[in-house]
Amino acid sequence: MNFKIQKKMKNSLGRAGVLETIHGLIETPAFVAVGTKATVKSLNPEQIKDVGTQVVLGNTYHLYLQPGDEVVRDAGGIGKFMNWQGPTMTDSGGFQVFSLGVAYGKDISKITKITDPSLMIPERFDDSDAPRLAKIGQDGVSFKSHLDGSIHYITPEKSIQIQHNLGADIIFAFDECTSPVEDLKYQEEALARTHAWARRCLVEHHKLGSDQALFGIVQGGRDKNLRQKSSKVISSMNFDGFGIGGSFAKEDMSSAVKWVNEILPEEKPRHLLGIGEPEDLFMGIENGVDLFDCVLPTRLGRNGTIYTKHGKIIITNAKYRNDFEPIEKDCGCYTCQNYSHAYVAHLFHGKEMLAGTLASIHNLYFIVNLVKKIRQSILDDNFFEYKKGFLGTYLKKD
Amino acid sequence: MNFKIQKKMKNSLGRAGVLETIHGLIETPAFVAVGTKATVKSLNPEQIKDVGTQVVLGNTYHLYLQPGDEVVRDAGGIGKFMNWQGPTMTDSGGFQVFSLGVAYGKDISKITKITDPSLMIPERFDDSDAPRLAKIGQDGVSFKSHLDGSIHYITPEKSIQIQHNLGADIIFAFDECTSPVEDLKYQEEALARTHAWARRCLVEHHKLGSDQALFGIVQGGRDKNLRQKSSKVISSMNFDGFGIGGSFAKEDMSSAVKWVNEILPEEKPRHLLGIGEPEDLFMGIENGVDLFDCVLPTRLGRNGTIYTKHGKIIITNAKYRNDFEPIEKDCGCYTCQNYSHAYVAHLFHGKEMLAGTLASIHNLYFIVNLVKKIRQSILDDNFFEYKKGFLGTYLKKD
Repeated sequence: MNFKIQKKMKNSLGRAGVLETIHGLIETPAFVAVGTKATVKSLNPEQIKDVGTQVVLGNTYHLYLQPGDEVVRDAGGIGKFMNWQGPTMTDSGGFQVFSLGVAYGKDISKITKITDPSLMIPERFDDSDAPRLAKIGQDGVSFKSHLDGSIHYITPEKSIQIQHNLGADIIFAFDECTSPVEDLKYQEEALARTHAWARRCLVEHHKLGSDQALFGIVQGGRDKNLRQKSSKVISSMNFDGFGIGGSFAKEDMSSAVKWVNEILPEEKPRHLLGIGEPEDLFMGIENGVDLFDCVLPTRLGRNGTIYTKHGKIIITNAKYRNDFEPIEKDCGCYTCQNYSHAYVAHLFHGKEMLAGTLASIHNLYFIVNLVKKIRQSILDDNFFEYKKGFLGTYLKKD
Repeated sequence: MNFKIQKKMKNSLGRAGVLETIHGLIETPAFVAVGTKATVKSLNPEQIKDVGTQVVLGNTYHLYLQPGDEVVRDAGGIGKFMNWQGPTMTDSGGFQVFSLGVAYGKDISKITKITDPSLMIPERFDDSDAPRLAKIGQDGVSFKSHLDGSIHYITPEKSIQIQHNLGADIIFAFDECTSPVEDLKYQEEALARTHAWARRCLVEHHKLGSDQALFGIVQGGRDKNLRQKSSKVISSMNFDGFGIGGSFAKEDMSSAVKWVNEILPEEKPRHLLGIGEPEDLFMGIENGVDLFDCVLPTRLGRNGTIYTKHGKIIITNAKYRNDFEPIEKDCGCYTCQNYSHAYVAHLFHGKEMLAGTLASIHNLYFIVNLVKKIRQSILDDNFFEYKKGFLGTYLKKD
C-alpha cells in the first residue's frame, strides 16, 4: 500500500491524496461504502460503482458468523465473493464488542446525543443493566451470536486470522470501542487493552504473512490526555495507517479528531470509523481525516429518508405523492435521472424492494460525491467557501 | 396494434409471430414480466430488459388503489412512471375479484390441485365461508381495499377508465374469473356476466377513444360447452386480441386452452393469463397461445426457489453454502455470470435484499429465455424434440 499527499490545506490539518491498494487507487478524502455482510444493502456492485464508490468495507463480526470467514476465503476473498473488483476493507469487530456489550439495548451508537444528565453517571459496574451479548476480558472478548446464541471468543489474534481469511486490502487491529459516558478509570483500562491488543495484532499479522495493509485504531474516549496518549502509542507501532475509533458525543468529535491527527504521522492515511453525516465529513476532512465509512446513506435510504442539498426529506410525506420532478433536478444519480418523487414515494408506500434500492443509490451518490467535491475544494484552495456554501443550504431550517 | 404470424406448427395450433405495439415489437410466443404495482419486484427496468423481457404487465386493481390511476396518468402512464420504455399491459382487475372474493382465504389460485374431493362440492351459496373482500353483482363488483378497508365499486366502464388512465399499450376487458370447483349453473351465470361486461368494455373503450389495444377475455371454467360458447361470443366482438382466463385444475388446462384456441380467430394474439410453469408454457404454446404472464419467476426467486434445467432448487439448502460454482454454469444471466451458489445462499441466509434481486434475475431470465427457445424451435420445426429434451431433464426426479 502506498499513500501520497497531493495537496495540504493552509492553516488546517486537511489534505487531499491518493491511496494505492492492491485492487486500485482511492482518491482521498473518500467515503467508504459499508457492505456489512459482503453486500451494500439493496445494491449490486455495478450500482455501488456507478454512484462513485471507490472502496467497500465489510464487517468482520458479521462475516465471521455468516457465512463464516472460511467460506469467504474459499470463495477467493470478500471482493471476489461479492463481485466487487475495487479496493476492500474489513473492520476488526471492535465496534461490535461495544454495540453488543455496554451499548446493547441502549440508545448509544457511533454518535450519542448526551441530553440526559443521568447518562453521564458512570454505569459500567452496574450489572443490573440490560443484558449484554459480549463480555470483555484482558485476553479478548466472548460474544453471544445474535443469530443463534452460540458463544464465540475473539482475541486480537483471532480477529487478524479472520481478517486474513476475509482477504480485504485494508484490515484493522482489534480494539475496544468505549462509550462516551464511561468514567476516566474505565477509559484508561480499556485503552491499555486496546494498545496491548494492537501489538498482538501486528505480531499475528506478520506471523501469518500477507500483503494486506493493517491499520491501528486510536481510542481514548473524550479525554484529551488519553486521545493524545493513544495517538502516540499507536503511531509508534508499525501500522500502515490508522483508524480513529470511538462512540462520540457530537460536540466532542471535532476536538477528539484534532487531538489525534495533530499527533498521527502525516504520511499515513487516517480513517474516522463509522462517521458520518455531511457536517461530520467537513469537520473530519478539515481536521486531517482521509477516509470515512458510515451505514447512514443506505440505512436512511431504506427507511425513506433522503439527502438533498436542502437537508434530509422524508419521501413518504403526502406532498410527494403528486410530485413528478426528480428528487434533485441537478443530481446526476441514476434515481434522479430516471424517476420522480411520486414514483419513489409510491414504491415506499407499496413496500416495494426497489424503493430501498433507488433511495440508497441517491443517498450513497450524494455522500460519496459530497466527499469528492470537498476533495476538489482542497485542490482548488476553496474548502472553506465550499463548506460555508454547502452547509449554509444543507443545515438551514425552513 | 398489428400481429403477424411468421410460422405455424404442423398438426398443432402453435405459431410464432410478431406483435407490434406503440412501444415496440413483441416476438411471440413471449413471456410477460409481471410488475404488479408498476415495478417488477426487486428489479429495475435495466435488469428487466437485460433478462430479455419484452413487455411488462401491471395490475389494474393494485394501481387503482395505490398510487391511484390518476397519479399514473399524470406521470405520463405506467411505462413512463416506472421508467420502462418497452411495451406494457394492464390486466382488468377481474382476477382480483376472484382472489378477493370466492377464493379469499382459501388455497385456490391460478392453478388448483384438486386432491380433496370435498373441494368439488359446489359451495358458492354457503355464506358461512371465510370472509370475502369482494361481492359480485350484475353491474359490477364491490371491493374492500386490502390496504385500508375502504369500499370501491368497479364496473366494466370503471375498469376501462382506470386502464385508460394507466395508459398501457394493451388492456383487458373486465371479466369474472371463476373457481374450477363452481357448479355448472354458477359458471353459466358468471359467463353471461363476463360476456355482457365485455360488450360494455368495448363501448366504453370506443367512447373514451384511445390508441390502446383492448383484449377480450374468454372464460367458462372446465366445461367444454361453456369454453366453446365463450370463445365464439368473445370472438364475435371487435377485440384486438384475447385473454384466456380462469383458475385451472392443472389437468384441465390443456383441454380448456385447446377448446378455446380452436375457435378464436387465428389472426389475433392470445394471452393465457397468469400462467405459468415451464411445462405449462410448452402446453400453451403447442395449443396456440402467444403470450403468458406469471408472478412465479419473481415470487419463487424472492423465496429462494430457483429454476434450473434439472428442476427447481432451494438455494438455502446446506449443500450450497460451500458451492462456489454458478447456479447454472452455462446460463447467460447476470447472476450466473457473476455469483456463486454460496454467495446467493449467503444473501438468503443473511436476509439481504440483493438475495431476491439475484434470484429473480435468474428465474426471469430462465423463463423468458425458455419461451424464446420454444419460439425458435417452432421456427426451426423442432418444437416436439425441444420439448421432449427440455422436459425430460426438467421434470426428471432425482
